[in-house]
Amino acid sequence: MTSFEDLLHQFETRFSRRHFPVTPATLYDPAEYILGIGGKRIRPVLCLMGNELFDDIRPDAFEVATALELFHNFTLIHDDIMDKAPLRRGQATVHAKYGENSALLAGDVMLTMAYEYLNKIDVSYLRRIVSLFNRTVFEVSEGQQLDMDYEQRTDVTLDEYLHMITLKTSVLLACALQTGALLGGASQGNADLLYQFGKHVGIAFQVQDDYLDAFGDPAKFGKQVGGDIIANKKTFLLLHTQQTASAAQTVELAHWMAYPEPAAKVAGVLGVMRACGADAWAAELKARHTDLAMQYLEDVAVLSNRKEPLRAVAAELLQRQR
Amino acid sequence: MTSFEDLLHQFETRFSRRHFPVTPATLYDPAEYILGIGGKRIRPVLCLMGNELFDDIRPDAFEVATALELFHNFTLIHDDIMDKAPLRRGQATVHAKYGENSALLAGDVMLTMAYEYLNKIDVSYLRRIVSLFNRTVFEVSEGQQLDMDYEQRTDVTLDEYLHMITLKTSVLLACALQTGALLGGASQGNADLLYQFGKHVGIAFQVQDDYLDAFGDPAKFGKQVGGDIIANKKTFLLLHTQQTASAAQTVELAHWMAYPEPAAKVAGVLGVMRACGADAWAAELKARHTDLAMQYLEDVAVLSNRKEPLRAVAAELLQRQR
Repeated sequence: MTSFEDLLHQFETRFSRRHFPVTPATLYDPAEYILGIGGKRIRPVLCLMGNELFDDIRPDAFEVATALELFHNFTLIHDDIMDKAPLRRGQATVHAKYGENSALLAGDVMLTMAYEYLNKIDVSYLRRIVSLFNRTVFEVSEGQQLDMDYEQRTDVTLDEYLHMITLKTSVLLACALQTGALLGGASQGNADLLYQFGKHVGIAFQVQDDYLDAFGDPAKFGKQVGGDIIANKKTFLLLHTQQTASAAQTVELAHWMAYPEPAAKVAGVLGVMRACGADAWAAELKARHTDLAMQYLEDVAVLSNRKEPLRAVAAELLQRQR
Repeated sequence: MTSFEDLLHQFETRFSRRHFPVTPATLYDPAEYILGIGGKRIRPVLCLMGNELFDDIRPDAFEVATALELFHNFTLIHDDIMDKAPLRRGQATVHAKYGENSALLAGDVMLTMAYEYLNKIDVSYLRRIVSLFNRTVFEVSEGQQLDMDYEQRTDVTLDEYLHMITLKTSVLLACALQTGALLGGASQGNADLLYQFGKHVGIAFQVQDDYLDAFGDPAKFGKQVGGDIIANKKTFLLLHTQQTASAAQTVELAHWMAYPEPAAKVAGVLGVMRACGADAWAAELKARHTDLAMQYLEDVAVLSNRKEPLRAVAAELLQRQR
């Protein structure tokens, strides 16, 4: 079995080349640009891992892995336009660098190129894998739309947020694993178990991300702690706090959320979150989805030692310093 | 053989239903909206015609036809965002009605739904037809990007404009015919001839469109004559005039193109165009591409009477009142 690092290296070796024609440069340079500014390549590696779980890695698993990474970058380009985000991976976003129109079209050709790579795989797998891929594109788009819708609402429930975040981020991890599994000859049952593993890893990761943004150690977290709180961003923590707060705590939370000075605002909101037990609750929620994920993985009917790289990647993703 | 009108009716009967899920309505209603405000459905009918040219119409030709119409509507949604167009088919554009972000995502799911319909066809045709479809998506995107690029330039040549307009509008007509032909069991040679037929019909149509906007009879043209001139839009006529004008005519053209009062501006520019022979030149250019198209059609190795509906649709498209 191959480790994450080795698969990442194998993938990068094939992926780090030009994917689009040279002209018109105004169309294709923006697409190449985002591929060149990095990324953790988690989705393509998960696809390769899902493939190797059932058999030696097939060459066309790299085609699917490439399609998944291109699709992921397509969502980044279009989401950044919608979110008016200036930076991505520490660099200018595509629309900030090339303008919104070119970014829009660059996203369109990125999605099309994903389908072009999918079209290279063994034809006997084509229909099933494209079908799963399409369903995932719809779901991720629904997640992005719901995320924008929820920004306009003050009555979003935890269940709604969980649904949105599952669509927006988790189903693509699940899809990556399942496409690899299907291409590896997995039964639908085993492929479905692996899908659930990926989905719950994704949810646990998002809970952890929300948790670390509020309660993480600034020295270890790697980005500003409290950013979500300063932006009044809906997170697992905020929604839980809002739903469990007493009348007095609700007033206090509203006071701090409207407070102009950032440091005091973060401290004030964190105080209410702690008083509502949001930190312990989030840790428990993350543990629940992690356990679920690992149980689904254990239920996949292949030899236990074949699962070692997937266990390792889940542990790596879900044991960041807090 | 079935007429355009009958095929249009057959297509509309199947197409005029909901294509997207009901929720989230904020994502899918904008997609359904544009499909509901009409359209001539030329591309899907051409696909069915390309199919019937070689054999009885196959049920899965309707899947490809649907994919082509969805792709066309995807380009309309995204192009309208880029062009900041307020109206489409006399109604509010998707972004004008629902906002740019929802329109962007609605376009994305429209393109994905096109691939979902393609994924339903006989698997033995899947790879070739998706490959042609992908190439066409890239080309149409290139055409849109070049169109935007050319707006910023004053030195666009006729050849560049012809290339751009071929990509932006003609290759999709050609693709529609060729996908139908391939699905009908046509040889690659015959399918290629039909592709060329569609491409040159498209070019002739665009030349005619430019011509009618300048020299058409307002009572018969159905939209404001001179709209391209008022907007200083690059057209076949303007580019020819700029490239053939004498020094004095160049000065006169620039004078009228900068003239503030619309009616005098149109009359002034038309005067220079006529003096440069742009009207006769455009009529000849249209005739040349029409003749080329008809020759390609005649060269397709099927019985002549099978080509009758395609001859009729070309005649209909290219004999609008002038």
